[in-house]
Amino acid sequence: MSRPAAAGRIVCGYRVRAAASDIERAARAIAYEQTVEVPEALVPPRIRDEVVGRVEGIEPLGQESFRATISYDPALAAGSLPQLLNLVYGNVSLQSGIRLEELELPEGFLEGFSGPAWGAEGLRRALGVHGRPLLASALKPSGARPEELARLAGDLVRGGVDLVKDDQNLSDPSLADFHERVARCQEAVEEACRDAGRRALYCPVVNAREEELDRRLEAARRLGVRGAMLCPMLIGLDAVRALAERHRLLILAHPAFTGAYFQDRGHGVAPWTLLGTLFRLAGADVSIFPNRGGRFPFTAEDCARISAELRKPRAGLKPALPAPAGGMTFERLGEMASEYGEEAVFLVGGALLGHSDSPERSARAFLDRIRGYFPGAREESCASS
Amino acid sequence: MSRPAAAGRIVCGYRVRAAASDIERAARAIAYEQTVEVPEALVPPRIRDEVVGRVEGIEPLGQESFRATISYDPALAAGSLPQLLNLVYGNVSLQSGIRLEELELPEGFLEGFSGPAWGAEGLRRALGVHGRPLLASALKPSGARPEELARLAGDLVRGGVDLVKDDQNLSDPSLADFHERVARCQEAVEEACRDAGRRALYCPVVNAREEELDRRLEAARRLGVRGAMLCPMLIGLDAVRALAERHRLLILAHPAFTGAYFQDRGHGVAPWTLLGTLFRLAGADVSIFPNRGGRFPFTAEDCARISAELRKPRAGLKPALPAPAGGMTFERLGEMASEYGEEAVFLVGGALLGHSDSPERSARAFLDRIRGYFPGAREESCASS
Repeated sequence: MSRPAAAGRIVCGYRVRAAASDIERAARAIAYEQTVEVPEALVPPRIRDEVVGRVEGIEPLGQESFRATISYDPALAAGSLPQLLNLVYGNVSLQSGIRLEELELPEGFLEGFSGPAWGAEGLRRALGVHGRPLLASALKPSGARPEELARLAGDLVRGGVDLVKDDQNLSDPSLADFHERVARCQEAVEEACRDAGRRALYCPVVNAREEELDRRLEAARRLGVRGAMLCPMLIGLDAVRALAERHRLLILAHPAFTGAYFQDRGHGVAPWTLLGTLFRLAGADVSIFPNRGGRFPFTAEDCARISAELRKPRAGLKPALPAPAGGMTFERLGEMASEYGEEAVFLVGGALLGHSDSPERSARAFLDRIRGYFPGAREESCASS
Repeated sequence: MSRPAAAGRIVCGYRVRAAASDIERAARAIAYEQTVEVPEALVPPRIRDEVVGRVEGIEPLGQESFRATISYDPALAAGSLPQLLNLVYGNVSLQSGIRLEELELPEGFLEGFSGPAWGAEGLRRALGVHGRPLLASALKPSGARPEELARLAGDLVRGGVDLVKDDQNLSDPSLADFHERVARCQEAVEEACRDAGRRALYCPVVNAREEELDRRLEAARRLGVRGAMLCPMLIGLDAVRALAERHRLLILAHPAFTGAYFQDRGHGVAPWTLLGTLFRLAGADVSIFPNRGGRFPFTAEDCARISAELRKPRAGLKPALPAPAGGMTFERLGEMASEYGEEAVFLVGGALLGHSDSPERSARAFLDRIRGYFPGAREESCASS
């Protein structure tokens, strides 16, 4: 997509609904709307040449559907995610039949971002697990007491879960409540790791008032916690970026409140662009998304492309891991193993908890099944770390 | 909608696409998904009674379309906007055929929020303009030099614009660039006010890296600026709330990047809920949205309901003003006057700039026309303030 003419520029591929006779005008309208937002006649030549987006190409995709490739001067994004979002999809989000499907960012722009602090490799190193997908599960339901959640956390780790995360619905009214709950869960995970001679990480959800975000992450870190789950569309994509940079914790990104972007396949932002490209840019080490065939309408292509965006080489950004989730079952682990391969996190919440009346036994069953699909997997014992 | 049973609770009206035979199950599924996210069978009775959302009612809206009213314990939102967004639409955003159309918040929850610091009345008092819509215009295009934008700002104010705001596409790479540009524009607006013996406000856009937001608002305030334009979906809704509380500036909220929520009328968040209820809760004194009949597909009902949500009495929250915008023309001012009445801000960008070759003359023409529709309007001269 990045033809030589667009080298060094931000390049967007938009799927545009338009008649063939109108597509050139429609593409130019996007280029103007996203940069100067005035009719063409009012734009002085210098600004038209330097600032207005450039239509790099138009290809037909189907009936009244085209790919319009438009490039922008990266200076317009001013090195910031909020301005990048505005540039590539701010105003046109309010129109119809324009979907942002591809987003290529030049090296000069990427250099301003740290991306994932851990990356796939850092996470594997911390866990000592190689050659198979990681197994993650969630502490729930909201309303359970801290000691109940802690017991569940310990059981899951004893059974073999690598990553224990909070459900995004867990909410702590105050920092003290958060501290109390997280302390118990972290303690339970550490104890279970010692008991079982293995490693695991606990990632509490941090989704609170802006003034509380740093305090909660700081409190968690002081308790020995090394990761957190954040919801970029709830607290702001750039808040995630800033928190990831300041705290250097493992970041699990959760897709709460993102779904409206994906609902209309002719408008919005493609899931791989938002949950893949942009969440990784903001520092997600792991990006959680609804696997196809669960309770959510994601397709196999959506899932494959999210995974590819998270893992692919990008100047200066570590590869991240896809975490398919959402109504996954024991029976579907084989299919997930072949679709995602080893470079993934299998996040199983309700299905694991409902698999047997012992979370530990359920976790063991899930892990054993995953191991069966990845005979070359290597798990370091605690002693070897 | 708030039946006695739901008193003191957060009450959501969802438009749900379902067969009549399935709607009860579908409504209950939302109530579980948004709170505990586990199958019903796994939820202990105490949590089912205290935590799971409560289906308060179901009414048919049309063919396979129902209104499901679901209430939640406000404790689940833990006094925070991020957790509120998660509670009312986090996970179901990723499903299909579920649209959040109504959101009623109990007094106890609203008490935790300051809402608009100025409100409609504070803005009118600052400007000394009563009994007619305010006239706003935008500094653009991106790429123009600070002195060009400042000249335009001065001309607009001399012509009669009440609120001069930056285009959301203006981007300043650094705090120093921002300072330079804003200083010139603010100076030009102040000078024009003195020349014309009237009052006007300049609102720069603040859309930058998280670490820069407070610094830019602080810098603007030190330059005498009293308002700012923020884009809640670019920096985070709760970032807007926090900035509004800390800086007590007039806040214009811009809808960049929100459009995907409105695209599918059977899924997403209704524009009046996001741009009305939620933006006001976050502290928007003025909420900008695309007027019907411009370049954007908003309907008359959308616009009327956004306006109603912004203006209606809500415990402890000052009324805010709707700012219809987006491809408005001189010819449509009469229609806007009758649709919005005096309690609005008419935001006219490109159409005003393109109306004549003198921004001052264009602004005067627009203002005179607005005055013609509101013969009872009262504008204090500077001396009377």
